[in-house]
Amino acid sequence: MTTDLNQFMDTHKELLNEQLLLKISELEAPPKLKDAMSYSLKAGGKRIRPLLLFAVIKSFGKDPILGLPAALALEMIHTYSLIHDDLPSMDNDDLRRGLPTNHKVYGEAMAILAGDGLLTYAFELIAADTSLNPATRVSMIHLLAQCAGPEGMVGGQVADMEGENKSLTINELENIHHRKTGKLLSFAILAGATIGGAVEDQIRSFQQFSYHLGLGFQISDDILDVEGDEDVLGKPVGSDTGRQKSTYPSLLTMEGAKKQLQYHIHEAKAALRETKLSTGLLEQMTDLIAVRTY
Amino acid sequence: MTTDLNQFMDTHKELLNEQLLLKISELEAPPKLKDAMSYSLKAGGKRIRPLLLFAVIKSFGKDPILGLPAALALEMIHTYSLIHDDLPSMDNDDLRRGLPTNHKVYGEAMAILAGDGLLTYAFELIAADTSLNPATRVSMIHLLAQCAGPEGMVGGQVADMEGENKSLTINELENIHHRKTGKLLSFAILAGATIGGAVEDQIRSFQQFSYHLGLGFQISDDILDVEGDEDVLGKPVGSDTGRQKSTYPSLLTMEGAKKQLQYHIHEAKAALRETKLSTGLLEQMTDLIAVRTY
Repeated sequence: MTTDLNQFMDTHKELLNEQLLLKISELEAPPKLKDAMSYSLKAGGKRIRPLLLFAVIKSFGKDPILGLPAALALEMIHTYSLIHDDLPSMDNDDLRRGLPTNHKVYGEAMAILAGDGLLTYAFELIAADTSLNPATRVSMIHLLAQCAGPEGMVGGQVADMEGENKSLTINELENIHHRKTGKLLSFAILAGATIGGAVEDQIRSFQQFSYHLGLGFQISDDILDVEGDEDVLGKPVGSDTGRQKSTYPSLLTMEGAKKQLQYHIHEAKAALRETKLSTGLLEQMTDLIAVRTY
Repeated sequence: MTTDLNQFMDTHKELLNEQLLLKISELEAPPKLKDAMSYSLKAGGKRIRPLLLFAVIKSFGKDPILGLPAALALEMIHTYSLIHDDLPSMDNDDLRRGLPTNHKVYGEAMAILAGDGLLTYAFELIAADTSLNPATRVSMIHLLAQCAGPEGMVGGQVADMEGENKSLTINELENIHHRKTGKLLSFAILAGATIGGAVEDQIRSFQQFSYHLGLGFQISDDILDVEGDEDVLGKPVGSDTGRQKSTYPSLLTMEGAKKQLQYHIHEAKAALRETKLSTGLLEQMTDLIAVRTY
């Protein structure tokens, strides 16, 4: 990682962590609910989605902080999806990033409600953001709901459940991942482009970028599940194999999956160059996703 | 019920039922998810919230249908809250309105996701409603998220859970109900007033109306839980008592609860008169809520 990227990520990650907890602390809501919401927001990870959003705004030469409410909303929606996915009736995971999952600490009922609360509050944050005009806010809310809802992440989660214990084609697998994780990544990128003031051609290039980045992200996730370091991942490796899930390595062999990953990373960077913007940081973030160990 | 009210409710209820299912059918999402979402929307009930929204718009002499997207969103959010409330880790209810609850038919994981999907799609519907200007849409989304989120319905649900097996004061009970059911009712009324074009004084009167109507609604619910007809309710009577919940009849005696109900109905109607609008339908709907048997 270069110093520039390092500094950009550290500074903005700190801001995000601080603002996420501040936003929850400001709520007039039962303390236990706020604790449960904060707990999973704190359990954190790399904040890759909001950082992408910031980096896209920066590629237009604008202040990334213009995207703060959208970035917080995005991270809240990502976090709610993890809380609900971990529930006993879903993936039944006890650990996430080395910490007990939300329902292990607060119980199932509270975990469901903490997720519901984060999802709902996300939309409030964007609606309340007076630094953007109402038309921009509405179009971002529209996009976020589409990316996170039945046609996006929620639908992808259902398709993923239905695909367990079945052998999928590579197309079916891509379709599931595109909805389950790709669409929320695409919100990060397109919300950033909207706030940055992208023209139509640039929107199209960013759509291409997000398509390839999303698939690259998922392939590297599948590779990590086989080759990752348990201590760094904070969860057991091989959990997908244990659940008989179709993965890129299982469908393409490990070598094939790695080739496919390189292809998507290459295409993602080509799309970035077509925007004719200062996309240095975004290119470096793309590389980071390809070689990540977390 | 007068013929006018009857006709208004029947016509608009039919429209709502039709449009709710149409909106789900239009989604590009896994069929099983759409089935689960539709199942609970179909299980229906009186559609009291969206009908109130329509009646408020009509009191301004405007076409109630202007509020259709907000009405559909509202009913989707109400429905998601019922699906999640019924889950085994929450109220663990097998029946709702005489039908098996969502998780009994589709399983817990799908029920959680159907709820998540309805909640998310609700915001998309309002955001996509081009018949209202972006500023109005943003302010409705803001209000809806506040009413449904951690400071509203979700927070009320947590407070309600925490209040079980505890004896509450009447103030604590009112506070819980205000958030758990009152805030979503207030969205119905205030969204209607916004679309109708209310001036500041009228907004204040509608706020008063919604406050008293919400408490009246909850008291009549508690009364029904003791005196209602199981066949009409579609669930066992006395379920609150079985759970050791504080209720209006348990805190105030049945006679006291009925008096309190009359007080709130009286105040609700007084607030309506202060709007100086054609609130005939709304007054009749208020009476209906006070004497309902469902």
